[in-house]
Amino acid sequence: MPFIDHIRRCNNCTTGDFVPLDIAGQAVGRIRCDRIDRLRAFPDVVTVGSDGVTLAPGLDDFAARSAAFDGMLGTLREAGEFPDWRGELYPVMLEWGDAPLLQVERATCPWLGVRSWGVHVNGYVRKSDGIHMWVARRARDKPTYPGMLDNMVAGGQPIGVGLMENVVKECAEEAAIPADLAARARAAGSIAYCHQYEDGLKPDEQFCYDLELPPDFAPRSTDGEVEAFELWPIARVASVVRESFAFKFNCNLVIIDFLIRHGLIDAETEPDYAALCRGLGRPQ
Amino acid sequence: MPFIDHIRRCNNCTTGDFVPLDIAGQAVGRIRCDRIDRLRAFPDVVTVGSDGVTLAPGLDDFAARSAAFDGMLGTLREAGEFPDWRGELYPVMLEWGDAPLLQVERATCPWLGVRSWGVHVNGYVRKSDGIHMWVARRARDKPTYPGMLDNMVAGGQPIGVGLMENVVKECAEEAAIPADLAARARAAGSIAYCHQYEDGLKPDEQFCYDLELPPDFAPRSTDGEVEAFELWPIARVASVVRESFAFKFNCNLVIIDFLIRHGLIDAETEPDYAALCRGLGRPQ
Repeated sequence: MPFIDHIRRCNNCTTGDFVPLDIAGQAVGRIRCDRIDRLRAFPDVVTVGSDGVTLAPGLDDFAARSAAFDGMLGTLREAGEFPDWRGELYPVMLEWGDAPLLQVERATCPWLGVRSWGVHVNGYVRKSDGIHMWVARRARDKPTYPGMLDNMVAGGQPIGVGLMENVVKECAEEAAIPADLAARARAAGSIAYCHQYEDGLKPDEQFCYDLELPPDFAPRSTDGEVEAFELWPIARVASVVRESFAFKFNCNLVIIDFLIRHGLIDAETEPDYAALCRGLGRPQ
Repeated sequence: MPFIDHIRRCNNCTTGDFVPLDIAGQAVGRIRCDRIDRLRAFPDVVTVGSDGVTLAPGLDDFAARSAAFDGMLGTLREAGEFPDWRGELYPVMLEWGDAPLLQVERATCPWLGVRSWGVHVNGYVRKSDGIHMWVARRARDKPTYPGMLDNMVAGGQPIGVGLMENVVKECAEEAAIPADLAARARAAGSIAYCHQYEDGLKPDEQFCYDLELPPDFAPRSTDGEVEAFELWPIARVASVVRESFAFKFNCNLVIIDFLIRHGLIDAETEPDYAALCRGLGRPQ
């Protein structure tokens, strides 16, 4: 199976299945057509039109919008939506760095089709025979993607938390990596995709970090989110990405990006190299 | 001036100025509208229609197409086009890795609006105070972009030459870097853009390589294409990219990509970070 299949699988959005959610003149979300009728019950929050959903008049600032959405989404939750409610607030905005238009519960982001952000940390070790990468296996009882392979550390980006702050926090919580070691993580770019699945749409962006670890250090699961960490030769990681869907969908893109940046695949041996370089950063 | 201005400047194509050049059912080029009348003199080579230029019937293989274009482009050259004729043949294809549909003289690529490829080598040194980068100043008598700043080594990709083969060759020719040292260059991705300028269109892709050099090695101009090499602290390189158009247009993108991959800019300090990550690989 070619690497490029992972780009395609992460970018499987069928535009016609969704209508735009427009807030303050910005098309920040996309809601599935078969769900918009449920929003007609909230005329004080949203206006449902034939070609999209817009914010109801009068919700002019962050606080008012956030409170109105909190009420609406909470009511939908009581009606059975969002079984994986986290109690974590995410910013709603078009691009990283924009001022958030409102904040919503994390679990509602795919339903609203708003972009969310996260950090993924490639943990690796340089040995005499080349690069080895720490791979995590997600706990079997995790609500999302149970049992799948994952990057060493990864986490969603809640509102009001810095990216490196989040890296250090997730490194501690998920892998028992001390703060001074986690602080060595180096920003290395981002990957983006627009993924459609049963919950809705994930037009997301993940910031990638490389963290070179000493050979005598091993990450350790502390919060139960990871079943086990294993250190694999990078060729094995590449092979599993190429041959399977064993990694959580977006981790494949993070790993392909790592392979490209570290010269572990190149344009002379990988026929889709140029399409991979472009596809990892596909605009939404 | 924000970094993102370089992405915009490299992607300044006004689609309406061009009509497609279609070869074997593939829109491989884009020719400026005000130039297509000149092609009516070559009905055995191309058919000029209201919505584009297509290959004349009967030119069914690489050899026939290449010979026909060679004749047509040679006649245009005699009429005053292509003053910078190089005597170097470039492949014409939609994507790197495709079988070339034909080959054409390098200097005609922008006129035809066909994609060309190249290799750019970031030469750098790790010192106690961080990364320093070798910067080249192009010779004042070079036909293209004279006197501008450039990556340490860069070269177009002729047909039939391997990418690393080209890296090693250009390292030797432009910078007197021995083959065993040049062979340490590591593939690190690619950048793409669609640049419109007086010659036509460059919908090009550049493969980026990182070459870490020993502190006691200095590149040296041998073929006269480079006036001087200078080793700059990376902060000075970043500052010149940010504040000026002193570097040849596409080198800015190669350097921004280097800054991103090496964690020298990140999403917490660079407001356009996500747009930069996406913009470097913008699909054409």
